[in-house]
Amino acid sequence: MNFADRLDQATKKVGNACLLGIDPHIDLLPAEYEGVRSTELSRGDRAELLGDFCCELIELATGKIAAVKPQSAFFEELGGDGVQAWERVVRTAREAGLLVIGDVKRGDIASTARAYANAFLSSANPEDEAHLCDAITVNPYLGADSVEPMVEACAATGRGLYVLVRTSNPGGSDFQLHGTPPLWERVAERVNQWGEGLIGECGLSSIGAVVGATHASDLGLFREKLPKCPLLLPGYGAQGATAKDLSAAFLPGGRGAIINSSRGIAFAYRQNPELHWKDAAKRALDEMIAELNAEIQVDQPASSR
Amino acid sequence: MNFADRLDQATKKVGNACLLGIDPHIDLLPAEYEGVRSTELSRGDRAELLGDFCCELIELATGKIAAVKPQSAFFEELGGDGVQAWERVVRTAREAGLLVIGDVKRGDIASTARAYANAFLSSANPEDEAHLCDAITVNPYLGADSVEPMVEACAATGRGLYVLVRTSNPGGSDFQLHGTPPLWERVAERVNQWGEGLIGECGLSSIGAVVGATHASDLGLFREKLPKCPLLLPGYGAQGATAKDLSAAFLPGGRGAIINSSRGIAFAYRQNPELHWKDAAKRALDEMIAELNAEIQVDQPASSR
Repeated sequence: MNFADRLDQATKKVGNACLLGIDPHIDLLPAEYEGVRSTELSRGDRAELLGDFCCELIELATGKIAAVKPQSAFFEELGGDGVQAWERVVRTAREAGLLVIGDVKRGDIASTARAYANAFLSSANPEDEAHLCDAITVNPYLGADSVEPMVEACAATGRGLYVLVRTSNPGGSDFQLHGTPPLWERVAERVNQWGEGLIGECGLSSIGAVVGATHASDLGLFREKLPKCPLLLPGYGAQGATAKDLSAAFLPGGRGAIINSSRGIAFAYRQNPELHWKDAAKRALDEMIAELNAEIQVDQPASSR
Repeated sequence: MNFADRLDQATKKVGNACLLGIDPHIDLLPAEYEGVRSTELSRGDRAELLGDFCCELIELATGKIAAVKPQSAFFEELGGDGVQAWERVVRTAREAGLLVIGDVKRGDIASTARAYANAFLSSANPEDEAHLCDAITVNPYLGADSVEPMVEACAATGRGLYVLVRTSNPGGSDFQLHGTPPLWERVAERVNQWGEGLIGECGLSSIGAVVGATHASDLGLFREKLPKCPLLLPGYGAQGATAKDLSAAFLPGGRGAIINSSRGIAFAYRQNPELHWKDAAKRALDEMIAELNAEIQVDQPASSR
């Protein structure tokens, strides 16, 4: 089934548009995972511990939300062992019924982009199937021929992409606003084209876009320029956007967008030192869901109401 | 020592500006490595074979050229096992006295960019030191705050970056030419700024730029806009640029640029089926060095003349 349809159904089933970012910053891990920072443990053991932390996060999110977004960089920090941990985390999340959006931000010339598609979306080896992602983030700087092999992989496998259009960080304005119209609009036009052949029954395409929740006054414009495009909005919580700001990014019925929070959930214990890290994370996730649902009501299927 | 100085010295020592790209496309590997394509072998064994092929390439290049550029995607295709092979390849090349430019094209928000810097340029763990790269390629789409953590890692470790400015693929024009001045010029201005604090004794900075050799008529312009910037030029050979085209990218004395060839060397056996793949690769590398040296004479230190 088409990625857009799978995400739409999964979001309706849980009744919220929350996406949990799994960004295991080594320096921010709770004390019980301090072994990851140890120089006494082997790298394999450190990667195993990093994976344990992420699997705990997955456990607390299971059944509550539709999808998780692991960030590749924090696994790559531990090299080949870290990537083995990444694979375990992806597999664990998928087995728990969560959709997995791999935050890898890859982008390269066509022949290389095909290799990245094989790595994350469409392996030739059945044994690798379990740790492929449902979607990945991609960087468009190299242009259409760098993204198209990824789009083809999505067409062949029912998977999806989120193309970086307008990122949430302050530096996102440096190049993404260049020119008239600004570059991000040009990228958005292409995102619409790439998605044309991949529109699901829900009316949305499998080629999504990353647009920062931090650009509160532009969220309606992003929605207008990307009418059939699933949006992924980072920047909620730690980066400052509120639930009220975000409603402009949604289609009627709370459809077509998901809101990411990473550190605000996983490392909530740092603001709540009286709680165990997992209790703090659970509470922060429940609060985020409640805050989003107060502004953005996701239509649920009749059966789950 | 500063990366620009190390590259400058290494280039002078060998007397050519050739860079060997290590892009082990699984489908193009010679028959004796067909195990990499097998579904009968374990992924670990396939990755081991992939690494063997790359180490053979490194062996034939050792002493002839200054640097190699492994492409991460073809290793990531084999997941955690592939990344272990990547680490072995980087380590082997560095032990052979070659500089290693990791073609990873990473780019992300600042906190994540720091994790990528730890992965490739500045690990906290001494045991990872051996497979760090001398430089990596980075994607600038997310703006200055995404590149600056990488620049800081270079300042701390004597390593370098090659920022994607104007890529060699046809789609490179889609966004890199957007606006007036074109986006790539804006990126080039930033590259100059990032490099200001990292200028070595050779007068060049450790923050380089990728500019496609395929844009033959623009090579002089790239050189002018990036006056102290080491250039990395892909697109020689398979992608069509000739040695004559390339001389405009160089500073006097054959300094300030390196020319990459990947498939044209590693897979030269496909055009020369009568030769063993390694003999074909050796011949192709020797021919490339001779072709470049006929147009671009690299000044060698007095001692090696």
